[in-house]
Amino acid sequence: MNDSPLAALRQAIPGLHLKTDPADLEHYGRDWTRRWTPAPLAIALPGDIAQVQAIVRWANAAGVALVPSGGRTGLSGGAVAARGELVVSLERMNRVLGFDAVDRHLVVQPGIALEAVHEAAAAHGLAYPVDFGARGSCSIGGNIATNAGGIRVIRYGNTREWIAGLKLVTGAGELLDLNRGLVKNSSGYDLRHLAIGSEGTLGIVVEATLKLAEPPPPAQTMLLALPAFDVLMRVFAEFRARLGLQAFEFLTERGLRHVLAHGGSNPFDTVYPYYVVTEFDAADEVQQAAGLAAFEACSEQGWILDGAIAQSQAQAQQLWRLREGITEAVARYRPYKNDVAVRVSAMPQFLAEAQRLLGEAYPQFEVVWFGHIGDGNLHINVLQPDEVDDAEFMAQCGHVTGLLAELLQRHGGSISAEHGIGLVKKAHLGSTRGDAEIAAMRGIRRALDPNGVMNPGKLFD
Amino acid sequence: MNDSPLAALRQAIPGLHLKTDPADLEHYGRDWTRRWTPAPLAIALPGDIAQVQAIVRWANAAGVALVPSGGRTGLSGGAVAARGELVVSLERMNRVLGFDAVDRHLVVQPGIALEAVHEAAAAHGLAYPVDFGARGSCSIGGNIATNAGGIRVIRYGNTREWIAGLKLVTGAGELLDLNRGLVKNSSGYDLRHLAIGSEGTLGIVVEATLKLAEPPPPAQTMLLALPAFDVLMRVFAEFRARLGLQAFEFLTERGLRHVLAHGGSNPFDTVYPYYVVTEFDAADEVQQAAGLAAFEACSEQGWILDGAIAQSQAQAQQLWRLREGITEAVARYRPYKNDVAVRVSAMPQFLAEAQRLLGEAYPQFEVVWFGHIGDGNLHINVLQPDEVDDAEFMAQCGHVTGLLAELLQRHGGSISAEHGIGLVKKAHLGSTRGDAEIAAMRGIRRALDPNGVMNPGKLFD
Repeated sequence: MNDSPLAALRQAIPGLHLKTDPADLEHYGRDWTRRWTPAPLAIALPGDIAQVQAIVRWANAAGVALVPSGGRTGLSGGAVAARGELVVSLERMNRVLGFDAVDRHLVVQPGIALEAVHEAAAAHGLAYPVDFGARGSCSIGGNIATNAGGIRVIRYGNTREWIAGLKLVTGAGELLDLNRGLVKNSSGYDLRHLAIGSEGTLGIVVEATLKLAEPPPPAQTMLLALPAFDVLMRVFAEFRARLGLQAFEFLTERGLRHVLAHGGSNPFDTVYPYYVVTEFDAADEVQQAAGLAAFEACSEQGWILDGAIAQSQAQAQQLWRLREGITEAVARYRPYKNDVAVRVSAMPQFLAEAQRLLGEAYPQFEVVWFGHIGDGNLHINVLQPDEVDDAEFMAQCGHVTGLLAELLQRHGGSISAEHGIGLVKKAHLGSTRGDAEIAAMRGIRRALDPNGVMNPGKLFD
Repeated sequence: MNDSPLAALRQAIPGLHLKTDPADLEHYGRDWTRRWTPAPLAIALPGDIAQVQAIVRWANAAGVALVPSGGRTGLSGGAVAARGELVVSLERMNRVLGFDAVDRHLVVQPGIALEAVHEAAAAHGLAYPVDFGARGSCSIGGNIATNAGGIRVIRYGNTREWIAGLKLVTGAGELLDLNRGLVKNSSGYDLRHLAIGSEGTLGIVVEATLKLAEPPPPAQTMLLALPAFDVLMRVFAEFRARLGLQAFEFLTERGLRHVLAHGGSNPFDTVYPYYVVTEFDAADEVQQAAGLAAFEACSEQGWILDGAIAQSQAQAQQLWRLREGITEAVARYRPYKNDVAVRVSAMPQFLAEAQRLLGEAYPQFEVVWFGHIGDGNLHINVLQPDEVDDAEFMAQCGHVTGLLAELLQRHGGSISAEHGIGLVKKAHLGSTRGDAEIAAMRGIRRALDPNGVMNPGKLFD
């Protein structure tokens, strides 16, 4: 029975690469959530835009749902295919298509890895400044679909700020060439920004024109050890006021211990309750001295217990690993992840209440949390104990997420800062977006994907 | 007959301020285009969000169209009410509602003038960096509706980059509270960005949370006199490579002569064919010297014939007036305006072809053109001779705009860089947006404004 739509697909697109081996279905049908059993119909690997359009038209005709697929490093289930969908992997469309030195634009296909974008920009003496731990395996198309943030948002903003143009194949199979690299373009609705962060529910990103920036100034990387949670925002305020921050990332003792157990190296002789990894402009001696002065001012107040300054690129990478290695280090526990945000001004109060809530709500589970303090973004990882079965674990985490969603709503926050809603958080979308907003989103979706073939069940039902 | 819906409106909103005097209908029914005869039903001046919502609900029930109205400095007819619409003037909703030093956000009502926003930001030691000539009379709501650009885009981007949150009353009368000042928020479609630049066709902006920036570094303002058009992009390249440009604006002898006739003062003894007003970072002697070095390098090449450096704030304002005063100086000729953009890299070729086209197409009309060279944005003002009647003039300008639209399409440009489409350019929207894009826009509009009460006939029919 299932073969008949696939036969039609093969007939419609003679040269299309298709995978149907069980191992491929398993591999391409899931992302980093590991919570749903992959069950795609097949995997299509288009080689160009015309093939993507033909796939979407086939999907409309055959009534088969599509799941766009990049590096599948997503943490919200946005790329999961568990209901007989055709996975559309963009991994073969992974090239740099062009560079313009005057515009400072890099044109890329969606399947290119973030790290390859970094390298291509660096080859022209420029930088693509969005960055995060999954850089080696995530794809730019996926970054766009979730408006990915990461560790440099405090300086450079989210993916959204760096997209000068997008080509999108809509759910109706139309190719939209959006904004085309223009700096100024006030000619109706900006569908480029509508597509960014839409999690594959409006169409498939098939090409992107990325803005590039001057490389960031030379930076100093510092690890700070903090005695208590309630000094965190004070250290942040002090550092922000004195320095040109490029990053300011927070983690706890628990996160550090997991990374150390997973091969990280501790620059201190002991383990402290809280840590910050920060990077700040250090182009000259004045800026370097300002970094030390900020450190000393906080130390004198008793807000910082210890510190380490990277003396080399290798040492900086070791310090960064303590923060960036957490996701990988806890992956074996299949953590339940919250990825929440509030306004920066709301952070102190929110963090205090969230800490209390999590302490009470998860007496039996280990909670590893960390975050991008300067952006108001907190990541909460609840680790699944070996002795607790999936259903019980998920039920408990879902319950606590409901409490957290209420807390967020009170503080005007978001249930997803940078991972997207996907499958994991769609039950809680209403904590962040009002009924009328969600109704408007549904209406917009119908306008671009009238038959609902694009990633159905993600974001909302 | 017309009184009956107004009676219903008065009954629905007892305290609503309404104006129906002929002079008010004339005043509030038009914008700077002066091409349509104002004929609104009445002017409503709501005092709060609830009144705006009640007006929109009334409009849906009564079948009356609404035209949102800010400072009516628009140049595309977006705020024209010529078909019995109710004008919704936001001028009474013009207050600063809040400021947050940690978030660096200013919360304002939509009717506040851009200049009042500048002053409010400055009072907190910060800056709202979008700026242009109409600052004293345009409103922030109108800036948002057209994604206004202006003279600092080269450094700071368009209005879009500075909106951290928006409250929008949709065409269905729903109040959407969009993004709420969050730095990170990946929770479905970004309706904030959809509303920005939508020219009042999706809803009415009733509140905005603006991002503020550090004040720009001290700058030097320079006027450059150029001998010929074809050196313009070379001077720009040289200045951009050597300096931190804050502005780089181009004008011609014709524009200068109009400003001089209108009270501007010429810093040179003679008049040159082309001019640039530029502003660049000059925080210290090194940067100031770099400015002089750029000037000298271009002078040695023969690309610059003369120059003037402002020695005071007053002198800088005099130089700026030569560029910013053009729109006002030519206003009495009711100019037909084009506001076009291409990628910066496409500028040299496009400018050469556009210059040829305009020279051939308008043998009998005076054309004043100027622009934001660093953003790829060119403004073309065709002045109406006293002896040519409106119909003939508009027919000829419409014809040339068609030729210009073809040229833009070939260069991947936009028929509206920063003024919006409104009434003036809707016939040419298809030169910039594909059929499928326009169809998607119509569908999105239906989702947010099902009965089509919001500014119908603007952007598209």
